[in-house]
Amino acid sequence: MARTQGSHSGITGPRIQDAALRLFAQHGFAAVSMRQIAGAVGVQAGALYNYTPDKQSLLFRLMESHMTELLTAWQDQPAAGDALSQLESFTRFHIRFNIEHPDAVFIAYMELRNLSAENFTVIEALRREYENTLETVLKQGVCEGVFAVPDTKIATLAVIAMLNGVNTWYRAGGRLSLDQVETSYWEMVRRTMVT
Amino acid sequence: MARTQGSHSGITGPRIQDAALRLFAQHGFAAVSMRQIAGAVGVQAGALYNYTPDKQSLLFRLMESHMTELLTAWQDQPAAGDALSQLESFTRFHIRFNIEHPDAVFIAYMELRNLSAENFTVIEALRREYENTLETVLKQGVCEGVFAVPDTKIATLAVIAMLNGVNTWYRAGGRLSLDQVETSYWEMVRRTMVT
Repeated sequence: MARTQGSHSGITGPRIQDAALRLFAQHGFAAVSMRQIAGAVGVQAGALYNYTPDKQSLLFRLMESHMTELLTAWQDQPAAGDALSQLESFTRFHIRFNIEHPDAVFIAYMELRNLSAENFTVIEALRREYENTLETVLKQGVCEGVFAVPDTKIATLAVIAMLNGVNTWYRAGGRLSLDQVETSYWEMVRRTMVT
Repeated sequence: MARTQGSHSGITGPRIQDAALRLFAQHGFAAVSMRQIAGAVGVQAGALYNYTPDKQSLLFRLMESHMTELLTAWQDQPAAGDALSQLESFTRFHIRFNIEHPDAVFIAYMELRNLSAENFTVIEALRREYENTLETVLKQGVCEGVFAVPDTKIATLAVIAMLNGVNTWYRAGGRLSLDQVETSYWEMVRRTMVT
C-alpha cells in the first residue's frame, strides 16, 4: 500500500529532527552530511529532501523549534506575581528547561555561526524576545524598588549566561539534586539583583 | 639554502596554530581537514606532519596552550591583597583575557567533545586548576567573613559562566567600553558574594 506524502512526513519529520539534533551536537553542523542523517533515520538520502530542502533549512528549523518551544514553555508557566517571584520562577524554569534539552541548547549557541544571514536574523529575534521577558522582570523589579540593577540589559545577559553554565557540569545523580542546583542559583541571582 | 628543521618548525608552528585555531572556530574541528589547514598556512599537507602527528594532537596543543597561557597570565597579575580585591582582579582579568582570545575560548568549550579521553583528562585538569584559583579566593573571603557563599564550587562555576557570556555579545566600539563592562560585571559578582 502506497504511503501518502502526508503520513510519510508526519512519521519521519520528528525522527529526522531528532537524528539531526543528535548528530549536529555530537560532530558539529559542518561535519555532518545529509547522507549521515538519512542513515541514522534509516531512510535513503533522497527521502530527506521530501522533508527539508537542504541542511541549512534543517538547522534553522531545529533552532527555530527550540526557541519557540522555550518561549511557549515560559509563557505556560503559572503567573508569578511580583518581580521577585517572577525572577525566581524564571531562574528555576530556565535551568530545568536547559537540562531537559541539552543538545538543542548546545546547538542554539554553537551553530549560530553556521546560519545564513537571513536565518540568523530570525533566530536572533527569537532569542531577543526571550531575553526581553527576563529584562521586563528586572525593569519591573527596579520600578517596584526591589531590584538595584544599573543596566538591565547587561544584567539579563549575565543571568542567562550564568544559568546556561549549569548544562556544562550538572549530571543527574551527582552531588546535588536539580532542585538544590536551582536553589543555589536562585540565591545567587537574588543577591545580584535585590537592593 | 636549505632551511634547518629547527628554523622551519619555529616559523611555521605558530602559523599552523593560528590557522588551525581560526578554521576550527569557524567550521568546527570535525569539518576541517589537515589539507585545509596546510592550505591556509601555504604549505603542503605533508609539511604539517613535521609539526604535528595528527589533527587530534593539533587540537589538544591548541587547548593546552590556551589553558596554560590563561593560568600563566593570571599568575602574572599583581597580587591583590584581600579576597575582595582578588575577586575584583579576577573578574576584570577573566573578561579581558577572554575578549582578547575569542577563538581560543570558543574552542576551549566547544571542542571538548572532540578530545580523546586521555587528552580530555589533561585539559579538564588544567581547567580545574584555573577554577580552583577562583574557588580559593571565594574560600578566603568566607574565612575573612566578607563573602557569604554556601557552596564555593557552584559559585565558582556560576561566576566563570557569567563572565564567559561577555564574549557572546561584546563588540569593541559598541555602547559600552570594555572597562564599563568589567565594572558592571564586577558590581554583579561583588553583590553575589559579599555578605
